[in-house]
Amino acid sequence: MQHHEVDTVPGTAPGPGRGPDRTADRLTAGEILAGYLHTRAGDFLRSLRLYSESGSDTAAAEQAAAALRGSARRIGGSLHTFRPLLDPAWADQLRTELVWLSGTLAQEHACTARLHRLLTALGRLSGAATVTAGRADDPGPAARPTGPLTVGASRAGALLERQLTLARTRSHSAALQALGSSRFHAVADAVAVLASEAPLAPLASAPAVEVLAGPGEATERHLLDAVAALPLARAAHPYNAEALVHGLATASEGEAQDAPWHQVRQLLRLHRYAQEVWCAAGAPDPALSAAGRALDRHRDAAEAAAAAANAARTPRIAPATAYALGVLHADQRHEVEASRFAFQQVWQGAAALPAS
Amino acid sequence: MQHHEVDTVPGTAPGPGRGPDRTADRLTAGEILAGYLHTRAGDFLRSLRLYSESGSDTAAAEQAAAALRGSARRIGGSLHTFRPLLDPAWADQLRTELVWLSGTLAQEHACTARLHRLLTALGRLSGAATVTAGRADDPGPAARPTGPLTVGASRAGALLERQLTLARTRSHSAALQALGSSRFHAVADAVAVLASEAPLAPLASAPAVEVLAGPGEATERHLLDAVAALPLARAAHPYNAEALVHGLATASEGEAQDAPWHQVRQLLRLHRYAQEVWCAAGAPDPALSAAGRALDRHRDAAEAAAAAANAARTPRIAPATAYALGVLHADQRHEVEASRFAFQQVWQGAAALPAS
Repeated sequence: MQHHEVDTVPGTAPGPGRGPDRTADRLTAGEILAGYLHTRAGDFLRSLRLYSESGSDTAAAEQAAAALRGSARRIGGSLHTFRPLLDPAWADQLRTELVWLSGTLAQEHACTARLHRLLTALGRLSGAATVTAGRADDPGPAARPTGPLTVGASRAGALLERQLTLARTRSHSAALQALGSSRFHAVADAVAVLASEAPLAPLASAPAVEVLAGPGEATERHLLDAVAALPLARAAHPYNAEALVHGLATASEGEAQDAPWHQVRQLLRLHRYAQEVWCAAGAPDPALSAAGRALDRHRDAAEAAAAAANAARTPRIAPATAYALGVLHADQRHEVEASRFAFQQVWQGAAALPAS
Repeated sequence: MQHHEVDTVPGTAPGPGRGPDRTADRLTAGEILAGYLHTRAGDFLRSLRLYSESGSDTAAAEQAAAALRGSARRIGGSLHTFRPLLDPAWADQLRTELVWLSGTLAQEHACTARLHRLLTALGRLSGAATVTAGRADDPGPAARPTGPLTVGASRAGALLERQLTLARTRSHSAALQALGSSRFHAVADAVAVLASEAPLAPLASAPAVEVLAGPGEATERHLLDAVAALPLARAAHPYNAEALVHGLATASEGEAQDAPWHQVRQLLRLHRYAQEVWCAAGAPDPALSAAGRALDRHRDAAEAAAAAANAARTPRIAPATAYALGVLHADQRHEVEASRFAFQQVWQGAAALPAS
């Protein structure tokens, strides 16, 4: 396989259609940034209202919570990337609170998705067809394997279901508690300020073309440095068996291996959000989205593998259950490896193409 | 990935340097076949003498046994492929006996290699460095993982060692018993006949260029048909997770999936042996050797995975042991998948190149 030099983030090299919108030439950096934050703050407040109105409609509540998390992440990311253009103390404080909020709100959904992923994998590993009705992350009874499972696989599934349902219930309570707290109301108030007027630094009054590119490029540089530090050459070689190399060692060693990939995932997201500010009208770059999805899958599989390993440490489980959890853990670690391969394919492939 | 039409076995398409040796043009088919069988029978009898003389030198005994198996397989394969040129009843009878003999002799080595493979994998999965001194299949104490293993991994290793050492001891006794049996002496006598004069059919008196190609081409056709029936397009897609699809189902379902690949492995070997008769002076085709090695690895990994699954069914093992065996089983099934990928790469790659 040919190795390509990656000098720019895929799809962001200069070219026709890239760079700031032509109409933005006459705007100040503050106007563009405030406009973006205004839109996102509006999304945040709307999602919050939808969430509180959703009542017993769990699908609507979940959708609203996802939108709330998405806007919180985007606002937090912009506050981080464009910190030089904002009141720094205010930006740092709000960003910390938004990280807390989106982290707290994400747990419930993560437990649901993890359980679904693990039960689907158990069904696949048993050679049984799974009926995944409705949404892909629907963990309802229809998503369970329909064929007969071995004793070990069905016991492992029941154990994971107990443990992850308990974790989900706790996360749900924690999210409800967070949304009722005075800490949350302070965040919502700060976001409401953003929706009317963002506290800008003096630098923000300079033209957008002069000062908006700098912070975005710094984020891009961090991303490129982090990607360059990844073992991409190894990931490009299929079946390198790297992800399972600590499959039987202590959990911390496996986590150390995943950390650089998780970091790239977060930097890639920051970069995508910065691009949204920079070229608000442009469609998201498909290569960046695909790379992001591969790293999302990497994170999900790594956490599912950890959940299977964790369940296997439950005292007094049957050997057949532990065996099934071992197979499941290894399966998810191979999914981790497959995600790295997919990321590498997208990244090198996009870097090889001329920017369009 | 591009799909290539495979019309011929890689490297065996007509071209300069292929086909029967030029000097063989004037020989009869019987002379060429008898010459080949004479050489192989000589190898067989020499290996047998070396084996009986090896005494307590286990390395020499193992080497002699490997050579004995190799010549038995080659003689048996030639008797099968070139049956029309030989006394058919005699050829069938000797071939059956040679299959019995090489099968019986192969068990001990297979147990040794399987244990080595599984212990090496356990070491790798524990993130420990393994010191593999000497030959790659040396199962001596130096091949054991040197780093600290988790409780589960070390117990799993001890369990596998007990079970496979017991199996190896039984295989060793069975091999010794076979070599002392009157059945074996009858085989050795028949091979000694081959070393002096092979019982040929009337057809063998025809010129080699007229009748030797036909049987070889029939073997090649069987091989191509069997390869065409393999799910190569799926194997070409890395991380297809196909090999583990019955990882938690009953053992027979996993075996059914492997069977076509095992069959291709045997047909490929028959084809290589037929080529040896046909172009005795030619070096073995590197693509065929590489394809054969990939399928050997496929077989070894499949059997190691089955041994791990089997060990996990031992009554009263600890959950941590069962978990480690589950991880090990999945790891070896991924090695199965990786071998299919490697075979597909070699096969399609060689088919895309012009014959050299």
